[in-house]
Amino acid sequence: MTSLPVAPDTFHVFDTTLRDGAQQEGLRLTVADKLKIARHLDELGVNFIEGGWPGANPNDTAFFAAAADGELELHHAELVAFGFTRRVGAKAADDPLVQALIDARTPVICIVAKSHDEHVFRALHATLEENLEMIRDTVSHLVANGRRVFVDCEHFFDGYKSNPAYALECVRTAAEAGAEVVVLCDTNGGMLPSQMGDIVTAASAIGVDLGVHCHNDTGCAVANTLAAVDAGVMHIQGTVNGHGERTGNANIITLIANLQLKYGWSLVSEASLREATRISHAISGITNVPPNSRQPYVGISAFAHKAGLHASAIKVDANLYQHIDPTLVGNDMRMLVSDMAGRANIQLKGEELGYDLSDRELAGRITDVVKQREMDGYSYESADASFELLLREQLELGDDFFEVLSWRVLTGHEVKPEGDSEATVKLRARGEVLAYVGEGHGPVNALDMALRAALKQAYAHVDDFELIDYRVRILDQGHGTDAIVRTLIDTTDGERTWTTVGVGTNVIEASWEALYDAYRWGLTKRAVPVG
Amino acid sequence: MTSLPVAPDTFHVFDTTLRDGAQQEGLRLTVADKLKIARHLDELGVNFIEGGWPGANPNDTAFFAAAADGELELHHAELVAFGFTRRVGAKAADDPLVQALIDARTPVICIVAKSHDEHVFRALHATLEENLEMIRDTVSHLVANGRRVFVDCEHFFDGYKSNPAYALECVRTAAEAGAEVVVLCDTNGGMLPSQMGDIVTAASAIGVDLGVHCHNDTGCAVANTLAAVDAGVMHIQGTVNGHGERTGNANIITLIANLQLKYGWSLVSEASLREATRISHAISGITNVPPNSRQPYVGISAFAHKAGLHASAIKVDANLYQHIDPTLVGNDMRMLVSDMAGRANIQLKGEELGYDLSDRELAGRITDVVKQREMDGYSYESADASFELLLREQLELGDDFFEVLSWRVLTGHEVKPEGDSEATVKLRARGEVLAYVGEGHGPVNALDMALRAALKQAYAHVDDFELIDYRVRILDQGHGTDAIVRTLIDTTDGERTWTTVGVGTNVIEASWEALYDAYRWGLTKRAVPVG
Repeated sequence: MTSLPVAPDTFHVFDTTLRDGAQQEGLRLTVADKLKIARHLDELGVNFIEGGWPGANPNDTAFFAAAADGELELHHAELVAFGFTRRVGAKAADDPLVQALIDARTPVICIVAKSHDEHVFRALHATLEENLEMIRDTVSHLVANGRRVFVDCEHFFDGYKSNPAYALECVRTAAEAGAEVVVLCDTNGGMLPSQMGDIVTAASAIGVDLGVHCHNDTGCAVANTLAAVDAGVMHIQGTVNGHGERTGNANIITLIANLQLKYGWSLVSEASLREATRISHAISGITNVPPNSRQPYVGISAFAHKAGLHASAIKVDANLYQHIDPTLVGNDMRMLVSDMAGRANIQLKGEELGYDLSDRELAGRITDVVKQREMDGYSYESADASFELLLREQLELGDDFFEVLSWRVLTGHEVKPEGDSEATVKLRARGEVLAYVGEGHGPVNALDMALRAALKQAYAHVDDFELIDYRVRILDQGHGTDAIVRTLIDTTDGERTWTTVGVGTNVIEASWEALYDAYRWGLTKRAVPVG
Repeated sequence: MTSLPVAPDTFHVFDTTLRDGAQQEGLRLTVADKLKIARHLDELGVNFIEGGWPGANPNDTAFFAAAADGELELHHAELVAFGFTRRVGAKAADDPLVQALIDARTPVICIVAKSHDEHVFRALHATLEENLEMIRDTVSHLVANGRRVFVDCEHFFDGYKSNPAYALECVRTAAEAGAEVVVLCDTNGGMLPSQMGDIVTAASAIGVDLGVHCHNDTGCAVANTLAAVDAGVMHIQGTVNGHGERTGNANIITLIANLQLKYGWSLVSEASLREATRISHAISGITNVPPNSRQPYVGISAFAHKAGLHASAIKVDANLYQHIDPTLVGNDMRMLVSDMAGRANIQLKGEELGYDLSDRELAGRITDVVKQREMDGYSYESADASFELLLREQLELGDDFFEVLSWRVLTGHEVKPEGDSEATVKLRARGEVLAYVGEGHGPVNALDMALRAALKQAYAHVDDFELIDYRVRILDQGHGTDAIVRTLIDTTDGERTWTTVGVGTNVIEASWEALYDAYRWGLTKRAVPVG
């Protein structure tokens, strides 16, 4: 059987979630989002984080400014600014977009260059020689400014098929001008693994270090990347959760796990790899793209087995039915969550939040409550605030900020400027009974208004709370309009954002519960600064 | 560059969405669901449809009975029953589960057999020779009963790594007993493409036709399948949308598209391939697993380009930035949706439903309305009934069954046996004003009860209508509780099932609209039997 290659002396894991990943339809990242994601990527142990295109849009420029001004402390990764070769007919030294790359103050700059002759003619409207001069001029200007320079050869594989000599000439030109790595890009994503090797090998003859950048249009982004690795590239690009334009980029966590656990290479620390599942889900939370439960290695279903056929064999030896030990990537086999493992998780989670759950009996009791509630449809994985409230109840920490006496909401066909819904909420807070009305667009918005109006009388600062996201999932499909519903609500007070969960036989009941938790948690945090 | 292989004389596309795909966490398919999916698979042009495991559960037994009794007319595909080799120490002729396979009355039977020595010892608790005898006995018994038999060698690749001679002996035994195809399964999904070829080649020496069955645990299910095809297998297994346990199975639509459009093989008709996007989405609607927008070839984002970088080049030549022409798989470049293509689709859809839209101006006007409504958040792809109602309005076919005068619904914290919600609906039908109250669990259930109570006075048969599914999707995430909401409702009258869509600034408004359409369509169909 073909043996897998050994690791080269130097190997780059280059993440482009913040640049190419952000090209995904519907994905919009603020500067704060980008900073948070970059910290997660650094924790994961990637070598390079491509942060965006400074100068191309104010958001990316602001991200690099924030990073350079000390808002992003990286322990491991190098930050990379992305840009283009200089404009046709200009000089790199006079090109404001090239200058913006230098102004981004990153140690590394990655520029994209055309390497497909048809694209030079038809998209750039330039001669083949002018494109080579653009590469030469831009790379040497950036190198002269003290930057390490990587060059992405756009459409390299299609370009090689169209005009192999020219595609290779682009690689050679970049190398001669001082590029440290030349990255071969399958920009349109149409390659298949069996076709990668020969083209990479042809480029290898030039002698510069090579990288690869793949998209998933044939469902082969990961395999194409591995095929290029097998042919000798020492630098791979990808994105967390496979984010990216069209079908997305190569999934960088899948690549790291394959190279580390199948090839036996050591790219990130074992401890970092064990954070992969958590980091993947945390980044899903920031991008607000629901996590793919079937994602290799880190999906919540990736090691889940339906009872039945496999069950008895799994009891004999879990490894009979799994390709790796899921704990290596911080995941878990879903059928065998033992009471022990469950309790250990709860203890760890509690510790993270600043609670001492070392008492085994107490931790066991809380684990049972959590398991029961997860069976009922709650999901605490994505709702840390509701989890903390449950913990505080079990610890009898008594957060008696308010008691709800009643609530109701009326929605109808009439739409007034204040909305189409009217809610009343009656509660007791600080010894007083408060009954208030709220109007809004939809029942949840109206309930939010009424609850806020009442609570404001007792706790003025609830006015700082803002509901920023609201998600609904029907849990038992196929039951018509009386199915079980789960809602998640994200709330912010400007400083922090928290997520709460509610479950009910209808969307209003579930929403109300998540809303109730949202306010309770916000009040708790103002009163009891923990962690 | 390595050239791609030519197509073998016979090649099998074997779909296992209904069997292995149904192992996906959270996926439950009724007999009616399975029949619907099977019809779509037949339309797609697969050669074999594995329908389930008769005898293992009542649902699958009922599916095969329904199929055999004429409820499933297949034009192209052969139906396959799945099962196991006979029990250890028994005889195939006496094994009730083997008999259940024969009783399923399918032309083809696929049985799974152990081929990994450790699994024989530790999961089966049998000797290696007994396992071979189980294969021999079961295959020859089924062949003697006039069935074509395929054998899935479970854990074949891992088994080959553990004990190559034994794994190959299992293949040989199945072949000698009369199996038409022996399928090499990467059951745990841990393989990489570069390791597939040598193992498939070793099995090829036996001389029987080989197939391959891959899972996506390394993100390489499609690539592993292609690597096996390159090494000579003539039968590939997969599932629509990559459904399946853990990380899922190889995506059969991606495989068909790669083989047809990249290899140049002719597996399904060009017309069927153009239905791939629609079929993928229709099956998503049945499984109620949200379609993956980044799915290769058929995802709604698969050919979507963000404006900017690529835009000017795309205007020059769309093919500069796409790996295939998206219309070949029934998809569309999202930046350049031409008016022409839109109108042609609407005309075809109208024709399917029995309406003449050959008038170009009329079709153009309806297309504009549909486009506007889809921009507003409606999705007619999964809601044919709402689409037909829109069509009938535009054609001024005047379905004046009833006019809604007002509706409202109250939900509160009090839960009575009748539910927690109370709705009133006032409408005019057959000249009378009818105002009724409904109670229910949740606001939508209550509205359904009230609407039904009122309509029953005018149209007694609405009592046959039953709401069987209800889905909610928040469309613009990040807007808190006043986001745009889309709901889909499935209704049945016992004979047929229809889907309607509603959109609104809140979940109640959107649900009401879908509910209103559900009753309108049901009444239309009773009054005007079309199609």
